[in-house]
Formats: sequence, structure tokens, C-alpha cells
Amino acid sequence: MKIILLSLGNIDLPYLKDGISYYEKKLSHYTKLELLELTLNKNKQPKEHEAIKVAEGELILNKVGESDYLVLFDDKGVHIDSIAFSKWIEEKQIYQRGNLIFCIGGAFGFSDDVYHRANYKMSFSKLTFNHQMFKLIALEQLYRAFTILKNEPYHHK
Amino acid sequence: MKIILLSLGNIDLPYLKDGISYYEKKLSHYTKLELLELTLNKNKQPKEHEAIKVAEGELILNKVGESDYLVLFDDKGVHIDSIAFSKWIEEKQIYQRGNLIFCIGGAFGFSDDVYHRANYKMSFSKLTFNHQMFKLIALEQLYRAFTILKNEPYHHK
Repeated sequence: MKIILLSLGNIDLPYLKDGISYYEKKLSHYTKLELLELTLNKNKQPKEHEAIKVAEGELILNKVGESDYLVLFDDKGVHIDSIAFSKWIEEKQIYQRGNLIFCIGGAFGFSDDVYHRANYKMSFSKLTFNHQMFKLIALEQLYRAFTILKNEPYHHK
Repeated sequence: MKIILLSLGNIDLPYLKDGISYYEKKLSHYTKLELLELTLNKNKQPKEHEAIKVAEGELILNKVGESDYLVLFDDKGVHIDSIAFSKWIEEKQIYQRGNLIFCIGGAFGFSDDVYHRANYKMSFSKLTFNHQMFKLIALEQLYRAFTILKNEPYHHK
């Protein structure tokens, strides 16, 4: 099983690029990981928020195979703690045939089609985070999850 | 009213230093802000987790004045969303005489004395975050809060 982290738009803040590389490298010791940044073609980018969501949704769904498990980070999703998240990942590693795809939405959220395809919705917080920063947060939680599963001393209590 | 963000230990990851400076600069347009990093004297640092908490607690309480409002980021705290957080900050700006101090605990949490002095406990997530990274997350939320209060286009929906 490969873990894929899908996100919309490029990361343009240098500090975030550095942070993302930092965790990407650390995670490579624990799992196959692919970071995919999807971007709408600038010339074809619609102006309406709803149309952007739909166009981004098509980009997302193009990357999701039939046997993949699609998880949306969504404010209406299940709130989970770090220990539960690690156990959840472990279960997926055992039972999941396709890839485990985590998807961070764009600034306007997910289209109906994406919600319809999704297998699970997860929320890390009631807060809204900068969606570039959220990628860093998700990677740190993935890294934490694997250190918990390996009983490594990164996570306290 | 000044906003003080207290944290334990130094930030040693370069990408986080950069990210923290990035938001510190942005926030300087909206509020008086002070970032205080407290560190235990290495020669005197206790080994027991409980003793570390107590020693860190003394460092924290030394920085809190009588009229200050002390907020702990704590996993048993109130979960709040970004809009509610901005309104909460606005209210504090109106009614608070002393400083508004947000405190990020060390790796082992807060001592009983710190809990006793605290005015409010707030939780950003059920997840445990790296406490260095949490400083970045807190600054981004503070920045988001001020852009919400000013009706600036950073925060969507």
C-alpha cells in the first residue's frame, strides 16, 4: 500500500517547502509515500468558486483508482487523536488493497463528486488552516503515527 | 493589550524559524506581539518528567503578571473554530487590562500550579502536534483571526 497525499495548488512559501521535504524524508523510512500537487491550467481556470471546486474535483478523481481508499480532510469529518490515527493507518496497511489517498481540498472545498467518491472524511481540527500549511501538519501526523506504531520515542504519553 | 506567545524550549528546525518569522512579521501590522521562548538551565535540568513540568511551570509563572490573562493550549481545553477564535480575541482586546498570554506547554504538559493560575484552556485539535510546530500553527491562527476581524480576504467562508 502506498500513501498518497494529494493537494491543490503549488506550495510557494519556502519555509513550507523545507518543512515538507523534512517530513517527506523522515517518512520514507516507514512507508511508500507520494506527494501529488494538482494545479488547474491557469488559462482554463474558472472564476466562480463553484466552478473551481468542480474543476479541481475532476483533477482529484483522475488520480483515484477503483481500489484506492480516498480520505478527505474535511471540517465535517471525524475528529481523531494521534493514537487512534496511528491504529487507523495500521488497519489500512493490513486490509487495504489499493493506495491510501489523503486529499487536502482547495480554498473552496470539495465538489459533490469528490464527496460522493470519498471513503472517509477526517477532521484534524475545528479550525481552518492555511491549506499549504495543512500539508505540513498532515505529514507530521503521518510521521507521528508511524513512530507510535514502532514504539519510537517521538510521541510522548 | 499585548499578545504574548510563551513556549518552552528553543526552536531548532530552520524551516520552523523561517515560518515563525514569516507570521511574526505579518502579525506586527495588527497587534503588539511578543514571542517568548523559555528554557530550563541545562545544568539544573531535572530528569523526571514531573520535575521538568514543575520547573517549567515556575519559568512560565514568572512571566505572568497579576492582571494578565493566561491561556493554555491544552488537550482538555475548549475546541474553537477560526471565526469564534477571532471574536474571542476581539472581546479580549476590548475588556482585557493586562496582556493576553498564550502558553504552549513542554513535551510533558503543564504543572498543577500553571493549571491553577490559568484563566482559560483552549484546544486546537484532538491530535498531538510537535510542540515546535504548534507555535507556527498558533501564529497562523492569530494572523487568520486578525484578518477575519478586518474583513480581509485571507480566510474563505
